[in-house]
Amino acid sequence: MATHAQVLDGYLKRQKVLEASYSSNPLARGVAWVEGELTPLHEARIPILDQGFLHSDLTYDVPAVWDGRLYRFDDHLDRLEASCKKLRLKSPLSREEIVATIKKMIAKSGIRDAYVELIVTRGQQFVRTMDPNDKKPNALYLMVMPYVWVMPLEMQNVGGSAVICRSTRRIPPGAIDPTIKNLQWGDLIRGLFEAQDRGSVYPFLTDGDANLTEGSGFNIWLVVDGILYTPARGVLEGITRRSVIEIANAKGIEVRYEVPVELAYRAQEIFTSTTAGGIMSIVELDGAPVGDGKVGPVTSLVWDEYWAMHYLPEHTLQIGYPA
Amino acid sequence: MATHAQVLDGYLKRQKVLEASYSSNPLARGVAWVEGELTPLHEARIPILDQGFLHSDLTYDVPAVWDGRLYRFDDHLDRLEASCKKLRLKSPLSREEIVATIKKMIAKSGIRDAYVELIVTRGQQFVRTMDPNDKKPNALYLMVMPYVWVMPLEMQNVGGSAVICRSTRRIPPGAIDPTIKNLQWGDLIRGLFEAQDRGSVYPFLTDGDANLTEGSGFNIWLVVDGILYTPARGVLEGITRRSVIEIANAKGIEVRYEVPVELAYRAQEIFTSTTAGGIMSIVELDGAPVGDGKVGPVTSLVWDEYWAMHYLPEHTLQIGYPA
Repeated sequence: MATHAQVLDGYLKRQKVLEASYSSNPLARGVAWVEGELTPLHEARIPILDQGFLHSDLTYDVPAVWDGRLYRFDDHLDRLEASCKKLRLKSPLSREEIVATIKKMIAKSGIRDAYVELIVTRGQQFVRTMDPNDKKPNALYLMVMPYVWVMPLEMQNVGGSAVICRSTRRIPPGAIDPTIKNLQWGDLIRGLFEAQDRGSVYPFLTDGDANLTEGSGFNIWLVVDGILYTPARGVLEGITRRSVIEIANAKGIEVRYEVPVELAYRAQEIFTSTTAGGIMSIVELDGAPVGDGKVGPVTSLVWDEYWAMHYLPEHTLQIGYPA
Repeated sequence: MATHAQVLDGYLKRQKVLEASYSSNPLARGVAWVEGELTPLHEARIPILDQGFLHSDLTYDVPAVWDGRLYRFDDHLDRLEASCKKLRLKSPLSREEIVATIKKMIAKSGIRDAYVELIVTRGQQFVRTMDPNDKKPNALYLMVMPYVWVMPLEMQNVGGSAVICRSTRRIPPGAIDPTIKNLQWGDLIRGLFEAQDRGSVYPFLTDGDANLTEGSGFNIWLVVDGILYTPARGVLEGITRRSVIEIANAKGIEVRYEVPVELAYRAQEIFTSTTAGGIMSIVELDGAPVGDGKVGPVTSLVWDEYWAMHYLPEHTLQIGYPA
């Protein structure tokens, strides 16, 4: 178990230490690996001709470091490799080289709670003009930066506000396969604007056929009469989602893989899940309170267990920071 | 009128002159404008933290230069401005500054037949964390490079091969608005792979509801019993498409704005249209000949008129190249 107060307290202490290092360590605000070179993140640059920019022809993944430990790194690397295979991409570094490079970047940055982004792009060869006999290499970009919070940690014990979008629907799997983690956020950006225009923060997108899918970088969960509901189709197979499923299984909570939109308005609790923030309670939907408008007991249980999992040896890889 | 032989001959002559300048002019292979600096295109770099890369949060446009004249530049700038408005983006340069910069880039490069790309991105501020009181500026990137051919000019008088995709559908307008020119090519890349896997080149994507939409960077046209058909919904409002409509109007050819998939198999002629290549005849569809398998008379008429339009004063802006 890990209570919100404990998690927040530890995090804030580590943040203070990190911030104190900004003046002495140029990598403490973030570090990028581009073409074999480590650079302070805010100075890092990529070729304008990279197809990752010119046609968003890329895949990526985001593991995180929590309290000095990489969480479920192997699961993230497995998913990245599966995504690359589906897109016919090949990382120029081997898995072992990626692991070593990421560990070195985290250690050098001194960041104890980190957002780690690995992006594999097509490189400088456009698929339209690809000559199978003259293939240019794909590109890899690595970034380590201070933990990113889709919902600020301080806010997680009061919860946030979401809307079910009316102005946009999620890109269907028949157009872009959502199990290949991608950065084509046109629908999600549109959703974020709609949420903001409606005085809210988090957009939930439907599949255009009256089912919920996912939001701007997170999976969606409902609690209805003690049962957990999350969509199975048209969504990223989130690693945090997987942690939630494991917690539910261990706690004997049934999980059902369907979410018709109307069910959201009958939920006693709603939360979202993502590596960049964990388990995020939604206490207001379309302007009305969810349940009693407070973080509910199932959400709290999952939250506590989720953060406790970040210390389990089977899921974590300890970083060796310089003394 | 402009025949294929005339257009090809002029282009090849200008290409020779351009290639001879490669050794003396470092910008002759292409030039980029990034943050106020002109750089040889292949050396140009952008910040890795630009949201245009990190979430494909951008719009763009592609005017072209033909034989030293910018074609329908105002129409492209109008569309770019409309796209920016819809995405709540603002170019850091005014329209007048963009025109002056592009003209200077073309002149300095010496490129007489150029592909010009203008990209406006969100810059380094993510929409999720946008503070309306502390907005970072959006970014603009400009590129001028030798003309890009979606279908090589040499091939345009024999035509190319297309498939109607089975493995992917076009992103629907309810997810991403296709009238906002975007670089989220996940479905189109998938379509390009399918076309290549099926021994073809050009993917035609449906809307998932048995209507054709568009392909990988081009609009689609059918000729059935003397009438032109092109989709109206779920497609980019192409500037080349607009030229085709104007030619059809001038020549008394009826245009209908609907393309059920089955109509494609009954077409006597098929062609595609894009700035990066013009009017491109498709003589094979799903492995079978279109009509008699040769470039048809309506396609040829439109082709000739289209290239002749590149010399009309009302549509062109002459570039002043250094002597």
